Amino acid sequence: MRVILIGDELLSGRVADANLSAIAKAFAQLAISVKRAEIIPDDEAAITLSVKAALAEDGQVVLSGGLGPTDDDRTRQSLAEALGVELRFDEFIYEKIRERLSALGHEELAIHRNYALVPEGFLAIENPIGIAPGLIWRNGERFVLALPGVPAEVCALLPAVTERLRDLAQEPVFLGTIAVAGMKEAEIAERLERIPRLAGRIAYYPRLVEVIIKIKASDEEELARAVSLARESLGNAVYSLEDEGLESALGRLLRQRALTVSTAESCTGGLIAHLITQVPGSSDYMRGGVVAYTPEIKSRILGVPADVIKKHSVYSPEVAEAMAQGAGRLFGSDIALSSTCVAGPGPDGEHPAGEAFIGLDIGRKTEAFGFRFRGTRDQVKMCVAKTALDLARRRILGL
Amino acid sequence: MRVILIGDELLSGRVADANLSAIAKAFAQLAISVKRAEIIPDDEAAITLSVKAALAEDGQVVLSGGLGPTDDDRTRQSLAEALGVELRFDEFIYEKIRERLSALGHEELAIHRNYALVPEGFLAIENPIGIAPGLIWRNGERFVLALPGVPAEVCALLPAVTERLRDLAQEPVFLGTIAVAGMKEAEIAERLERIPRLAGRIAYYPRLVEVIIKIKASDEEELARAVSLARESLGNAVYSLEDEGLESALGRLLRQRALTVSTAESCTGGLIAHLITQVPGSSDYMRGGVVAYTPEIKSRILGVPADVIKKHSVYSPEVAEAMAQGAGRLFGSDIALSSTCVAGPGPDGEHPAGEAFIGLDIGRKTEAFGFRFRGTRDQVKMCVAKTALDLARRRILGL
Repeated sequence: MRVILIGDELLSGRVADANLSAIAKAFAQLAISVKRAEIIPDDEAAITLSVKAALAEDGQVVLSGGLGPTDDDRTRQSLAEALGVELRFDEFIYEKIRERLSALGHEELAIHRNYALVPEGFLAIENPIGIAPGLIWRNGERFVLALPGVPAEVCALLPAVTERLRDLAQEPVFLGTIAVAGMKEAEIAERLERIPRLAGRIAYYPRLVEVIIKIKASDEEELARAVSLARESLGNAVYSLEDEGLESALGRLLRQRALTVSTAESCTGGLIAHLITQVPGSSDYMRGGVVAYTPEIKSRILGVPADVIKKHSVYSPEVAEAMAQGAGRLFGSDIALSSTCVAGPGPDGEHPAGEAFIGLDIGRKTEAFGFRFRGTRDQVKMCVAKTALDLARRRILGL
Repeated sequence: MRVILIGDELLSGRVADANLSAIAKAFAQLAISVKRAEIIPDDEAAITLSVKAALAEDGQVVLSGGLGPTDDDRTRQSLAEALGVELRFDEFIYEKIRERLSALGHEELAIHRNYALVPEGFLAIENPIGIAPGLIWRNGERFVLALPGVPAEVCALLPAVTERLRDLAQEPVFLGTIAVAGMKEAEIAERLERIPRLAGRIAYYPRLVEVIIKIKASDEEELARAVSLARESLGNAVYSLEDEGLESALGRLLRQRALTVSTAESCTGGLIAHLITQVPGSSDYMRGGVVAYTPEIKSRILGVPADVIKKHSVYSPEVAEAMAQGAGRLFGSDIALSSTCVAGPGPDGEHPAGEAFIGLDIGRKTEAFGFRFRGTRDQVKMCVAKTALDLARRRILGL
């Protein structure tokens, strides 16, 4: 299958694409894989050309973008051109769009009529959360599917789309996942590439702090053997056998052990709490958090002694420990995590950007860990937050 | 210019690309625009073919990905193949890589020697934060540049790369930006498309809550006129004339007026504080925040009366107001923002996912605002957080 992502904003760097990933995952359920993707401008001729080439070379095409009502959106026109058909105004679809507008509390505008233009031979698929319907054309195993560009709408439309194409499902390859934290890609590779039985089966997907490893096999038994070999060689760095973030694995662990958690954040500014609460159902174990962005608040709300701050500076293991203890007391949680670091971009006095201390208060024991992370402000915050989650995971497991 | 993004993980949906945007922005400074981009697998033949085609059709090519040390990374081999040259091991570069490894505290492994393989005719560009050097080949206006796949490393390498290609800069198009919040794309378009002088000049880039509008012109005077017309027609919804998030605009406003801010978050779980603290220098106005994830904590730490929670439920304007007041008291800030909502995916009792109340405490006046957002858990959290920032902006401006 080929994916064509449409939008000047994607090429200009204004917006990063989020749809390819959602589309690829949805079609993976049908064992239809994306062989290549293109990102092209909102240009009628360019879209038409790409659709024609994709249909000729691949036969299965998914487009995203260019379905808005404004003049700069050209996908409908290009689809009509590429398949040599007319665009027609569909009264029935327009009725649905009017209902949707009214449900969303939007005024009906003349420009909204563009949403109901459909190339002949295409079916419109109702958009559960937005206005622009998806459009699909099918002929045997060949199909052209056009989705909006808004990521939430793509996600909302995909289940109906894959349902409609279910009969195309091919035999799946067996894929296993191992999620690892606190070990670099090169070290993981060095370990796994020593094992002859894993040769040619492994792919690495590094993120900040986390590395997702995919292992492939041609049957289930072979896969189970390969996963178990890899897992053994990576030891405690393995936090999950699913493609998920540390916050999900930690959440599961907290739930299993009936433990609660709280946070006291300085430089991460709420990111640790945000990650923990990204997991549905996290209210079962998350008590709360404090963002303490000034020394005064660290002292007054978290009870960090002012002389400790004065003596060691806010960037110190002593302050990280006192912050974690303060959160544990304040929220009455079993585990408390804290962060204090220089997020950057610049240094703070003699403390370089990326200098970080993470505090962990668990079972009456408090510890602090020092790090030096590299990268932009966003990346430093994310490295600190994810590392804090990993430290909590390791300590809960007694590692 | 053509961009080729390499990686099985991008096509499988494991990872969303973040590099195209960084590359496009860096080259925009040279007025070199990305005409199209391709996403292809870590496959030697596919990469070779794409590089050859891009060189023939466009002459300017940037690749990202496939420069890791493991066997599944094939970009070096493909570059050599596409340009018909040999790969050679570069002792000098390997020395630099050894230094880098030691500075990063990594053990030297046999596999790291792969980093020093360079196709003949290519120059290696030192990677300021990672290990894999960038690789560049140039012949007049034609160039092939290969960057790593890790986004932080791409960003770190780009300044040195654009410096090296500075003599290729073309005459720029004049582009203006208007950032709008709290108005839907269709309504913006309806307003702007009434203005004849703006015809054909406008492009819309909707995000959650925010819409970035780009206006183009062929000279500065014409651009200034067009921006001013558009701005007038959009009124108070305009929050910036730069491409930035609400947190940056709000931060500027807080700094100008010497106001401080704090947060009391339930459903957003730290996201409002995280957004505020994404802005460098935010410690000048951010005091702190509380994530109050249980009713007990809302009462005990933020002082929300238990009978108000009992009478109105936690999902109510009354609780949102009391939370904001509590944060204002606790942190002594001039402005306090609060959130209470059902993040989803499912409803909570009779309260549907996406039901949200935002509280705002400013200058002795407390207000609450009710919303119903749609989307996934992430999206609902982001809509609530961004809307809270926009409400604060509007109230500070007296709107």
